Amino acid sequence: MRSLLPFVADLPLVDHHCHGVVTRDVTRADFEAMLTEADAPSPLGTSLFDSLIGLAVRERCAPVLDLPQHADADVYLERRAELGAAEVARRFLRATGTTDFLLDGGFLPDALTTTPEFAGLAGTRAHDVVRLEQVAEAVIHGTTARGFAGAFADELGKRAETAVGLKSIAAYRVGLELAGSPPSASEVEAAAGRWLAAGGGRLADEVLHRQLVFTGLDLGLPVQFHVGYGDADVDLRRCDPLLLTGLLRATRGGGVPILLLHNYPFHRQAAYLAQVFEHVFVDAGLITHNAGFRAPAVLAELLEIAPFGKVLFSTDAFGLAELYHLGTALFRQGLSDFVRAALDAGAMSEKDAVRLCALVGHENAKRIYRLEHV
Amino acid sequence: MRSLLPFVADLPLVDHHCHGVVTRDVTRADFEAMLTEADAPSPLGTSLFDSLIGLAVRERCAPVLDLPQHADADVYLERRAELGAAEVARRFLRATGTTDFLLDGGFLPDALTTTPEFAGLAGTRAHDVVRLEQVAEAVIHGTTARGFAGAFADELGKRAETAVGLKSIAAYRVGLELAGSPPSASEVEAAAGRWLAAGGGRLADEVLHRQLVFTGLDLGLPVQFHVGYGDADVDLRRCDPLLLTGLLRATRGGGVPILLLHNYPFHRQAAYLAQVFEHVFVDAGLITHNAGFRAPAVLAELLEIAPFGKVLFSTDAFGLAELYHLGTALFRQGLSDFVRAALDAGAMSEKDAVRLCALVGHENAKRIYRLEHV
Amino acid sequence: MRSLLPFVADLPLVDHHCHGVVTRDVTRADFEAMLTEADAPSPLGTSLFDSLIGLAVRERCAPVLDLPQHADADVYLERRAELGAAEVARRFLRATGTTDFLLDGGFLPDALTTTPEFAGLAGTRAHDVVRLEQVAEAVIHGTTARGFAGAFADELGKRAETAVGLKSIAAYRVGLELAGSPPSASEVEAAAGRWLAAGGGRLADEVLHRQLVFTGLDLGLPVQFHVGYGDADVDLRRCDPLLLTGLLRATRGGGVPILLLHNYPFHRQAAYLAQVFEHVFVDAGLITHNAGFRAPAVLAELLEIAPFGKVLFSTDAFGLAELYHLGTALFRQGLSDFVRAALDAGAMSEKDAVRLCALVGHENAKRIYRLEHV
Repeated sequence: MRSLLPFVADLPLVDHHCHGVVTRDVTRADFEAMLTEADAPSPLGTSLFDSLIGLAVRERCAPVLDLPQHADADVYLERRAELGAAEVARRFLRATGTTDFLLDGGFLPDALTTTPEFAGLAGTRAHDVVRLEQVAEAVIHGTTARGFAGAFADELGKRAETAVGLKSIAAYRVGLELAGSPPSASEVEAAAGRWLAAGGGRLADEVLHRQLVFTGLDLGLPVQFHVGYGDADVDLRRCDPLLLTGLLRATRGGGVPILLLHNYPFHRQAAYLAQVFEHVFVDAGLITHNAGFRAPAVLAELLEIAPFGKVLFSTDAFGLAELYHLGTALFRQGLSDFVRAALDAGAMSEKDAVRLCALVGHENAKRIYRLEHV
Repeated sequence: MRSLLPFVADLPLVDHHCHGVVTRDVTRADFEAMLTEADAPSPLGTSLFDSLIGLAVRERCAPVLDLPQHADADVYLERRAELGAAEVARRFLRATGTTDFLLDGGFLPDALTTTPEFAGLAGTRAHDVVRLEQVAEAVIHGTTARGFAGAFADELGKRAETAVGLKSIAAYRVGLELAGSPPSASEVEAAAGRWLAAGGGRLADEVLHRQLVFTGLDLGLPVQFHVGYGDADVDLRRCDPLLLTGLLRATRGGGVPILLLHNYPFHRQAAYLAQVFEHVFVDAGLITHNAGFRAPAVLAELLEIAPFGKVLFSTDAFGLAELYHLGTALFRQGLSDFVRAALDAGAMSEKDAVRLCALVGHENAKRIYRLEHV
Repeated sequence: MRSLLPFVADLPLVDHHCHGVVTRDVTRADFEAMLTEADAPSPLGTSLFDSLIGLAVRERCAPVLDLPQHADADVYLERRAELGAAEVARRFLRATGTTDFLLDGGFLPDALTTTPEFAGLAGTRAHDVVRLEQVAEAVIHGTTARGFAGAFADELGKRAETAVGLKSIAAYRVGLELAGSPPSASEVEAAAGRWLAAGGGRLADEVLHRQLVFTGLDLGLPVQFHVGYGDADVDLRRCDPLLLTGLLRATRGGGVPILLLHNYPFHRQAAYLAQVFEHVFVDAGLITHNAGFRAPAVLAELLEIAPFGKVLFSTDAFGLAELYHLGTALFRQGLSDFVRAALDAGAMSEKDAVRLCALVGHENAKRIYRLEHV
């Protein structure tokens, strides 16, 4: 491993997209189920520790639990159980060097820490990102087709008062091919009517996902989109960020930031959008920990054409405390390798390198989410 | 060149997808026509030896024929002719260190060795993979629209008795956007009727390709799919493995392995499918020899998120004996470079490295194709 | 930075696709607006100097203006203004080592040098590439729906007399999914009628873009296509070169070269087309300067399967004199890094390396555009 450059090792980070952590103890099966985007190890394959992320856990997480690097998976899990999940969470979250976590609490909230609990474990600040679809799915049962748009806007406005950003998971439900203009009131009413007639539940309607996004943009809060890589529930082909081109073109004058999350394996496409659309920002969350020691290679591809003022850091960590640590440590490794390669090539000065790292590590996020004002 | 790690140099390999070898002597024109996926050198371009694979032949194959590295193409072909094609085949096949070859004998069988002939030349085991479309095209002329499904299933059942796997070339004929459920009996009958009315011949009908796949899955044998890179006959855009998402989702509970072959340049997409669908496996055949000294870069991308229990080795070599040797040698190079980079970075232990190589080199294939039972 | 191999440093280059240069003085805002594919720096982001291309300007261009490497952007622009745009253009163009520039003069011609002016500044040869759409948009107003096809062919024939190639920007207007056969006379007439009825102006009609291409191919001049990466005006998803597969299949027997420009991030797809279609050629223009010190990584990906007889050099530089210099210097860096890596790996001989560089640097372009005959 190339050692980290000192100014990368010490860089304060804003993790602009992650989720709560699990504080109950987990079995090996639970652990493997949360480790990657697979639901569980395959009976046709082998342990999910047989992967770059599995190796990264044993390399980079074991020492945080006082074990030698590359400790066996069973030894690792035994030690984890011995320390208890809360202590494990505390150790990993505090090892990150993250000053602000932005938490999307909209997925499986009952199994995870709340934002205040998370902040307590991490010993630092945590902020809310509101998942648009969760609000809509809560609102739909107490309203009518005609009333849905207003009820959603009201509830979102309330939720947004204490939030720093919003998030759309349209990618998971209908894909990213959202039309480039807000739906009309009658289109929304008709779609809400269909949804109600189907009994509410899981939202999956292009008109409504789009309506949520445009309502969110009206509030002026940054809107995050799940893009690319995810679990088997996703149709990855419909998660290419280029499918958002029409919507991005339609919203570029509005001054509200749109953040494309994850993006792998379409991260070069996302970087293109970040270069040409003034309100588009990108990260490489989720893949950073999944790709283990290959994370630096992916990050370098993202940085080819994305302006440094448009790239953010996130882990997209969910559930396992290890993922916050890995996502952060591997991001630092990637950033350090990237600027060191540039420094070695004479392609930037050290002053440039420090500036680039500060932008990507925390300055862009603080500016976009107005974290000084929180 | 970084030297191979000893445990990679000596690794027994299972080549889970290749074809027969040509044992007639070949002219320079023949050789170039079989070297890459181009039909022939272009009158507008230059020799196809002007490519990474051409350079790899002169670097890595020349010594096997007792020539110095980088011997000129004409000198190389002269020496090849002098030794005779059978001796050349023997030398290259035996240089691979492959213990088991799985041969798809369904393309141009008259020009190539049979499986037993191949095994004799290679001095090792060779197994049959049955090409679904070849069986269908043989069966259609002796049956009726209504009888087709049964006749195909019967014939495939017979052929499968001595085979270890099946293969679909739907990608070449209709692309990979196959629907996620088996066609109904009446749909199959109607499609077979259209095919018969058109005189049989080359199958290219989404309903029937899908029917072949589902019939194959019912037999419980692993089903290989051509994915991605191929010759000019392919519409590469329709060969993105993500197009199979619906079919993969529909078949994930069945316990029958599905193997995505080649995959370039969609290998990261394929790796995603291998991570999230328990029955999906991937390789980087065909591109490994075509990319010459860049093969390690491609293999490293495949291994970012594909679990090591889901990655197999194949050459997809066809015709030219050199391609078995190149595909194998460059795979070893890529695997060695990958684990050496991880070892250098402290990202895995040597024990992990040995395990990873054994899984990818032969253990996954032996498990999936049940090669111990053959 | 790895130093350039001597035979790469001295390699004469043919820049087979670029545009005129701006000779008026530019403000910082103008400069940033022309630096990348963004229209302007984002009020939500930071300066566009915060990017790999921005760093490359300060690293590689500053010394040409007698400044130290990594000079601050403001210092750089001050020095630029002091020298004057014409002197700046002269310095950068003459620093390239390019013997022949092929200029597409069809975009914003009034703001840029003409081809003879450009040749004077560069002190070398410059040739015309005719933009098909510009000719059509000039012709439409003086003709009828029925007369359009003939009027276009006549005018193009005249313009082509002194040109070495043609260019289609269908990608920018309707995307690359052009059908695989020339439109019929009546289809062209109907489309021209619709265009006239809409008042002429900006052409965006699949039938007519296709008609322009087929008319161009009839003239026997190489036809360039914008592919992939471009500004916010492009719908990048419709610029995948694989969308051209049908048209390429239909035109492969004709012996007229088709050149896929830029291609990023679809450069591996483009390389596939260059391998399997005898009349298809590729480059990595535009991304070479945008990716700064990452340009070598992109070029290496292009060269994985593209035969060396099918790869050309271009900058796609437009407006800013720096871009010709950067595109050229970073191409040399990429080529040098690529062959040095191959030499270090023993994957080619030095004789091979010299040949590869000559082909890609100028020989392929001279052969395809018949530059000896100009």
